[in-house]
Amino acid sequence: RIKASSLKLRFCTNETQATREKFVKKLQGLGFDISVDEVTAPAPAACRVLKERSLRPHLLVHDDVVPEFAEIDKANPNCVVIGDAADNFSYANLNEAFRVLIGLENPVLISLGRGRYYKETDGLKLDVGAYMKALEYACDIQAEVVGKPAKMFFESALAELGVQPQQAIMIGDDIVNDVGGAQQCGMRALQVRTGKYR
Amino acid sequence: RIKASSLKLRFCTNETQATREKFVKKLQGLGFDISVDEVTAPAPAACRVLKERSLRPHLLVHDDVVPEFAEIDKANPNCVVIGDAADNFSYANLNEAFRVLIGLENPVLISLGRGRYYKETDGLKLDVGAYMKALEYACDIQAEVVGKPAKMFFESALAELGVQPQQAIMIGDDIVNDVGGAQQCGMRALQVRTGKYR
Repeated sequence: RIKASSLKLRFCTNETQATREKFVKKLQGLGFDISVDEVTAPAPAACRVLKERSLRPHLLVHDDVVPEFAEIDKANPNCVVIGDAADNFSYANLNEAFRVLIGLENPVLISLGRGRYYKETDGLKLDVGAYMKALEYACDIQAEVVGKPAKMFFESALAELGVQPQQAIMIGDDIVNDVGGAQQCGMRALQVRTGKYR
Repeated sequence: RIKASSLKLRFCTNETQATREKFVKKLQGLGFDISVDEVTAPAPAACRVLKERSLRPHLLVHDDVVPEFAEIDKANPNCVVIGDAADNFSYANLNEAFRVLIGLENPVLISLGRGRYYKETDGLKLDVGAYMKALEYACDIQAEVVGKPAKMFFESALAELGVQPQQAIMIGDDIVNDVGGAQQCGMRALQVRTGKYR
């Protein structure tokens, strides 16, 4: 119905375990009329930051999101990008990411989110935020978060739509990441009582 | 020479990758006249805390330090003890420790240290402090640290010697863990310019 109206629409997700292509296919399967260029997600947001600042990342992310970084130069890394890497969060991989950071004159850590944990069918799992904190502490640095609720994430979505914050409304089920993040950006926001709402 | 004098002596270590027995054998091999009952270490300090407060730990520690917890009841855990677990810091083990904590009404996390990283022959490694921070963030709690520079660690050593803080002097190579910790406890302290001193 929104699509049939003259309203502009954009899907904002913190999904970092898949490419936008895979994410869109899943939603299409659920009956949503959605295409890849209507999606704002942390990995492409990170790519914009990397390009703008000539950063070459060492990636500690999920295998399925690696294709989003296909066009990014990753040789001789001068920063680390961390996402919800799941099984890739091994002792060896964490030490490797740490060594890249601690070896840099100005360590830059970009995190695709700051979630604490999430639930899967086989139980609760630590989310990217926990591992981000581990690297922050070890290197005595602050990560830059590019997913929701980061201001720059909502600003990208607004820029892609070509509208001002006060012209937009954010709809989501997460009071901190969706509603809080949008409000801090000057948008109005609406919390739906579905999904993860309790 | 200290042993030949009337001075009382105690060895305070943050070693959590081995039992005191193993640690003492290593030092004996280097020519030190030292026995197990002269050593204050984080694992036995943790065991005292566990017994005093009727805590049953889920252990996320190095295999070689597990024997220190032999006499502790670990069934139906109501806290987590974390040490420098090295290869045991797997994604699965971290999720398991997290699930124990988040399932408790009052999550108690006891950490055998707060080190950020250390150096081994094959490079830098994340230390227990980084993983402690990850669990702290995920559970929104504060860990209780029982190794140096925690006050209770030096207090145990003093109690074992039967002396007051102002009667003792701490000698070590680490300005924060050895010197700072001891001073916060009312002891005098002396930094040697050997070992990790730079």
